[in-house]
Amino acid sequence: MARVFNFSAGPSMLPLPVLQKAQAELCEYGSSGQSVLEMSHRSSWFEEIIANTEASMRRVLNVPDNYKIGFFQGGASAQFAAVPLNLMGTGQADYIVTGQFSGKAAKEAAKYGKVNIIASTKEQNFTCIPDVDALTFTPGASYVHICQNNTIYGTRYAKLPNTGDVPLVADMSSCILSEPVDVSKYGLIYFGVQKNVAPAGMAVVIVREDLLGHARPDTPAMLDYATIIGANSMYNTPPCFCIYMTGLVLNWLENDVGGLAAMQRRNEEKAALLYDYLDGSHFFHSPAQKEFRSMMNVTFTSPTPELDKAFCAEAAKNGLVNLKGHRSVGGMRASIYNAMSKEGVQALVEFMKAFEAQHA
Amino acid sequence: MARVFNFSAGPSMLPLPVLQKAQAELCEYGSSGQSVLEMSHRSSWFEEIIANTEASMRRVLNVPDNYKIGFFQGGASAQFAAVPLNLMGTGQADYIVTGQFSGKAAKEAAKYGKVNIIASTKEQNFTCIPDVDALTFTPGASYVHICQNNTIYGTRYAKLPNTGDVPLVADMSSCILSEPVDVSKYGLIYFGVQKNVAPAGMAVVIVREDLLGHARPDTPAMLDYATIIGANSMYNTPPCFCIYMTGLVLNWLENDVGGLAAMQRRNEEKAALLYDYLDGSHFFHSPAQKEFRSMMNVTFTSPTPELDKAFCAEAAKNGLVNLKGHRSVGGMRASIYNAMSKEGVQALVEFMKAFEAQHA
Repeated sequence: MARVFNFSAGPSMLPLPVLQKAQAELCEYGSSGQSVLEMSHRSSWFEEIIANTEASMRRVLNVPDNYKIGFFQGGASAQFAAVPLNLMGTGQADYIVTGQFSGKAAKEAAKYGKVNIIASTKEQNFTCIPDVDALTFTPGASYVHICQNNTIYGTRYAKLPNTGDVPLVADMSSCILSEPVDVSKYGLIYFGVQKNVAPAGMAVVIVREDLLGHARPDTPAMLDYATIIGANSMYNTPPCFCIYMTGLVLNWLENDVGGLAAMQRRNEEKAALLYDYLDGSHFFHSPAQKEFRSMMNVTFTSPTPELDKAFCAEAAKNGLVNLKGHRSVGGMRASIYNAMSKEGVQALVEFMKAFEAQHA
Repeated sequence: MARVFNFSAGPSMLPLPVLQKAQAELCEYGSSGQSVLEMSHRSSWFEEIIANTEASMRRVLNVPDNYKIGFFQGGASAQFAAVPLNLMGTGQADYIVTGQFSGKAAKEAAKYGKVNIIASTKEQNFTCIPDVDALTFTPGASYVHICQNNTIYGTRYAKLPNTGDVPLVADMSSCILSEPVDVSKYGLIYFGVQKNVAPAGMAVVIVREDLLGHARPDTPAMLDYATIIGANSMYNTPPCFCIYMTGLVLNWLENDVGGLAAMQRRNEEKAALLYDYLDGSHFFHSPAQKEFRSMMNVTFTSPTPELDKAFCAEAAKNGLVNLKGHRSVGGMRASIYNAMSKEGVQALVEFMKAFEAQHA
C-alpha cells in the first residue's frame, strides 16, 4: 500500500530519504564489496562510520568538549540500571516520577542504593510536571534523575530543575534531537534511539567526563560507562547498523532540515496544528496540562472508550496508523517525532474533524 | 567493486539472497506501508515476525519443549554477566578457559561469586581443548561454563564434558547453526548473533525452564532471564531488525540449504578444503591441534610476521578480505561461517597456493 503516516511512539517513522539511502546501499556499502550489515567493526570502513556518527552527534547537539559520547547495546531500560551502577557513589539519588518510565528507572535504581522520590505527579495522573522551583533535593544525593519527555502521558518539562552542583541526569529518549539542547546543564543525558533517531537496539549516553570511572565493582562490563566509552564504544562488537543509521539520520537533520533550530520550528508547527484543533474541539479532550504539553507525543481521548476504538480502527483504514494510546492509559496518542511530516499531522487533523463531525 | 569474500570473524558475511530480500523490502515490509525499521514492536506485523523467528529457531535447532528462547539486547559479552547473575545460586561455578572469550566470561562471573577455573589450556597457547574425561568438577558448583568454539584460536570442543546433573552452559556464538546440536545436553546455550546468524546487536539464550526464576535480586531487569523471557522478549522494545534478519537467515537455512545436517556437510567440505591444503603446505602452519580444529575459524601463519602482513594486504587486493588474525595473536584467520561459499574457500586456497609458490 502507499506509505502510511505512522504515529507509533517507538519504534517510529524514519525519514524516507534515509530509508531510501539505506536501501540503495544495503547490499554494498560504498565500494567495499560488502553490506554494512556484514562489515567487521574493526574495518576501516566501519571505523569511519562510527567516527562520523559521533562527530555528527557532537556537532548537531553542540556537545561541549568535556562530555563523552558512548553507544550502548540495548535501550533506555538498560540505562535505568547503568545510571545508578555508575553514578550512585554516595549510595543514594533523587528521582522525580512523572510517568511510567521514570517510575521504572527509580525502581531499577533502588536495586543499587537509596532512591528518594522527591516529587511525583502520580496523584495528578501524570498530567503535569512538578513545580521545579519548589523541589527539595536530598543532601548527599549523587544525582537527580528526570525523564524529560513522558511518551505515555504526553508531557514534558517546560523548565529544568536547578540542581546546583548535583548532576542532573535525564532520560531524553522521546525528545532528543527535536530541538536544541544545552548539554552543559546536565551531568548525563541518555536516550534509546528507537523514537527519534534510528531503529531499535541502541542507547546513546552523553556524559560529563568527571562522572566517569566511579562504577560499582560489580557493574556488568557492558554497562560500565568508563569501560565502553574508554574503548570508543568498541569494547566489544557494537550495534553497527544502529550506529550507521544514526549517522544517516544526523546527516538528514544537518543537511536536509538545517539543524536543530530548524527542526524545532517544524516540530512546533506540527504540534500547534494538533493542539490548536484539540483546544477548539468539544469532542476530543487532551488530558495533559497545557503548560507541560509534549511537542512529540500528543495524547487525547474521545467521549468514550468505544469511540476511541472506532477512531483508531477507522484512522488505520485511512493510512493513519498506531494512534492507540499506551495500553496502561487507553485513549489515543499521536507521536509526531522529527520524521513525521506536516502533511501527516494535517491529514490526522482532517481525519479528526471528519470523525468529530460524524460522531459528535 | 564486485562482492568480496569476507572472512571476518564477526560481524560476518550474510547470505546474498537474505541481503537481497532485506533490501527489496527495506522501504516497505509486506503491504504494511512502512519499513520493518519503523514498525511498532506491538504491531501485528512485528508480532508475526518475532513469533515466526522463534518458531523457526525452535524447528531448525530442534529445541525441546522444556527449553525457552529469549532474544536479548547486546551480544555475548552482556551474557557473561547475565549467566552468573541468573544461575549462580550456590555462589560458585566452574569455568573452563580455552581462549580469550571464556577467560572474559570467567572474569566477569567473578564479580558475582566464586569462579573455579577447573581447566585451562593457556599454557598450550590455547591450541587445544582440555581432556574432558579428566575434568574434576567442584561439588556445589551451580553450573559448568564452556566456550564451545574459540573464534580467536580456531579450536572447538570435539566432545562435550559430561557434567552429570550440573547444568552445562555454553557460549556458542561462533558455531551455532553450523551443524545439528543436541540442546538437551545443555542447561543453557547463548550466542551473539553477529557471527553466524544476523547483524550485530542481539544475543539469543536457549535455557531449560527449571533454571529460570533464580536471579539475584540486584540483577538488572534487562539481564534477568525470567523477566525478558517471561515477556516473550517484549519486556521493552526488542532489537527488532536483528530479530527480523534472524528470521530471514533461518528461512534460508531451512529452505535453501536444507537444514542443519545439510549445512554441516557444506561446512565440513569447506573446512576440509582449507585444512587439507594447510596440512600439505611447508610454508603455512596451522597452530590448532588437529583433534580440536574449528570448522568455523581456521587460523594459520606464514613463516614471518612480515609475510603475514603481505599476505593479508595482497589477499585483500584480490577480494579476499579480513584475513588478519585477532590482534592478540597475529597471523591469519579465515572465518568460514555458513554464509561463506565453497567458491570463497576455493578462491582462498588458490590464492594461498600462489602466495606460497611466490614466497616459499
